[in-house]
Amino acid sequence: MLAPTKLHLSGERFCVTYQIVGTRDEAMRKAEEICIEQTVEFPADLVPDDDIRAHIFGRIESIEQREERLFHARISYAVETAGLEITQFLNVAFGNTSIKPDIQVADLTLPASLLAAYAGPRFGISGLRALLGVTDRPLLCTAIKPMGLSAEALARMAGDFALGGIDLIKDDHGLADQVFAPYAERVRRCAEAVQEANQRTRRRSLYAPNVTAPGKALWERAYLAKAAGAGGLLVAPGIVGYDRMQALADDPQLGLPILFHPALLGSFVTHPYTGMAHGVVFGVLGRLAGADVTIFPNFGGRFSFSREVCLAIVDAARRPLGGLRPIFPAPAGGMSVGRVDDLLTLFGVDTVLLIGGDLHRHPNGIYAASQQFLEKVMARDA
Amino acid sequence: MLAPTKLHLSGERFCVTYQIVGTRDEAMRKAEEICIEQTVEFPADLVPDDDIRAHIFGRIESIEQREERLFHARISYAVETAGLEITQFLNVAFGNTSIKPDIQVADLTLPASLLAAYAGPRFGISGLRALLGVTDRPLLCTAIKPMGLSAEALARMAGDFALGGIDLIKDDHGLADQVFAPYAERVRRCAEAVQEANQRTRRRSLYAPNVTAPGKALWERAYLAKAAGAGGLLVAPGIVGYDRMQALADDPQLGLPILFHPALLGSFVTHPYTGMAHGVVFGVLGRLAGADVTIFPNFGGRFSFSREVCLAIVDAARRPLGGLRPIFPAPAGGMSVGRVDDLLTLFGVDTVLLIGGDLHRHPNGIYAASQQFLEKVMARDA
Repeated sequence: MLAPTKLHLSGERFCVTYQIVGTRDEAMRKAEEICIEQTVEFPADLVPDDDIRAHIFGRIESIEQREERLFHARISYAVETAGLEITQFLNVAFGNTSIKPDIQVADLTLPASLLAAYAGPRFGISGLRALLGVTDRPLLCTAIKPMGLSAEALARMAGDFALGGIDLIKDDHGLADQVFAPYAERVRRCAEAVQEANQRTRRRSLYAPNVTAPGKALWERAYLAKAAGAGGLLVAPGIVGYDRMQALADDPQLGLPILFHPALLGSFVTHPYTGMAHGVVFGVLGRLAGADVTIFPNFGGRFSFSREVCLAIVDAARRPLGGLRPIFPAPAGGMSVGRVDDLLTLFGVDTVLLIGGDLHRHPNGIYAASQQFLEKVMARDA
Repeated sequence: MLAPTKLHLSGERFCVTYQIVGTRDEAMRKAEEICIEQTVEFPADLVPDDDIRAHIFGRIESIEQREERLFHARISYAVETAGLEITQFLNVAFGNTSIKPDIQVADLTLPASLLAAYAGPRFGISGLRALLGVTDRPLLCTAIKPMGLSAEALARMAGDFALGGIDLIKDDHGLADQVFAPYAERVRRCAEAVQEANQRTRRRSLYAPNVTAPGKALWERAYLAKAAGAGGLLVAPGIVGYDRMQALADDPQLGLPILFHPALLGSFVTHPYTGMAHGVVFGVLGRLAGADVTIFPNFGGRFSFSREVCLAIVDAARRPLGGLRPIFPAPAGGMSVGRVDDLLTLFGVDTVLLIGGDLHRHPNGIYAASQQFLEKVMARDA
């Protein structure tokens, strides 16, 4: 038995809603295990009746049946268990419990004091609109690709997209620092091509290179992007961690919009009873970590998300979350100009429409395709 | 249609084995989609008959039936697609395909040229044995906890464990930089307590603090650990990324053994048809990223891994992998001194036995419990 511990805590707690598969008794037992596993990870019977037991143990706030053999357990944790660090917040919310089957993080609720510790999206919907000078229509986005093209060819492509009216021109997430289009050369050429196009169009299209890179290289690439005149950064937090997306967003020397790419995050969301809910992965955590645009694979494309989960992502991107700005959802993954009307009817004006490969199918090339894409969006908007 | 591209590549390719659920035709179709999705992510019919098609597209090397409706597709990629960066290697291997259901990364095979780009574990089994001066028995490991104790109480615990004969004394992964035991104070006190114990025992126990932390804080904590005389580092690559574990392992100013903690990686492995195989997550990727000890939840504890997947992890930790050192598997998660014999019969001498809470159950305290643990291991060994 440990000696009793006296603590001086704020009393503020954050809540994690776990979806648990099983009977009510099984759900209750699993919820009790979570309270221990996610905090003390220590035999509960060896902890005296002290402040660790009273405040550090997770606390079951409610257990609610959702379907047959499906329960939602809301468990609260002292904000002090997570410090004010997103790494430890993820660890307390789901670290070891991620390894247990049939438990999913369905939602996260943070008290104002904890939310205040997160700067969140630097731009959000209104800030990105102000940067682009586009106040009243959905934003247009595409990617330069495929992997294997030279930096010169990719830059020509970026310039044509900008001339045609695409607002956000990002690297395909498969572009890193490969021999065929080395990062430094690619970013310099692409940023220049988009700036030249902007001078001609009088628009303010932004180029966002992919800075997902190992260790210090991530920072070198982000600063190089800034120095080259890039207008945003693409980052995959599933590969480099939500905390580095946050650090990029928070860095005052960068001050660039952040585009969140879903690479490697699939394992959290492909199975309905494990991992984390789509709104948590793409919405709440994306905003805590400073994303301004959250890219997700839309229903009806190459991936398998349902219409329902896409709407949950959109809601989590835009709904109130303390003082954190609402952000743009960017449905993607096999979208086409032909679907623009349907997408906007469903998702509304504060949406980034990301169309990739389909723009290359236009008989007159990507400049014409981009113009057609923009016209389609403007026509709808009028 | 793109203009034809000419490339000058090495011809070397790495292989990813995907387990795909479905009929043979479905598996073939999904494999063909993977070849595109993981590389060009571009309409294949718009790529001319050039070097991008011939060398950048993924290439199906074989499709083999494993069970009814279960196939293994081996797909190769040019090493140049991934640069020599572990972030991009993960991205090409599984980035977007992680979002598709019923596809799992079953294995990774790297050519010598790519393996040579990874320093891998700095110590591995033989190096860690040399550091500890323990040549001929399994290693003993435990964690200081629970969250909520003061730095002073945790340091006393660390010292007692070292006096009792535990080789590796790590932070519980729930210890970060919380008010009740701030990182700097905890690490200074714990490192000192273990060093003092070592002077008395003439052994060389190591203290490994948890450096899983956001952005620059990870590096500050690692250097602080080194300066304080800590003997290893605990890191959760599921939270901060495999690349930062690799950067910690490779850093010559640190030069410390790396203990790999599985927090947040569960979603990759809890479902049999999604994510990545256990041997890939804990073994191959752990070694590429420089782990010296790979901690995993053993069967028969609080978690649900089967005996079979635990053996797969152990095999992946120790089997030949280019010039990369074999590493210690560390079965954990509810282990007890009573299971030592069984664990060693199954896993062999090159194992780290990680026992946490059970050591606190001994009526005479953790010093006596540690001694008993060591005696049990020595007796078996004799």
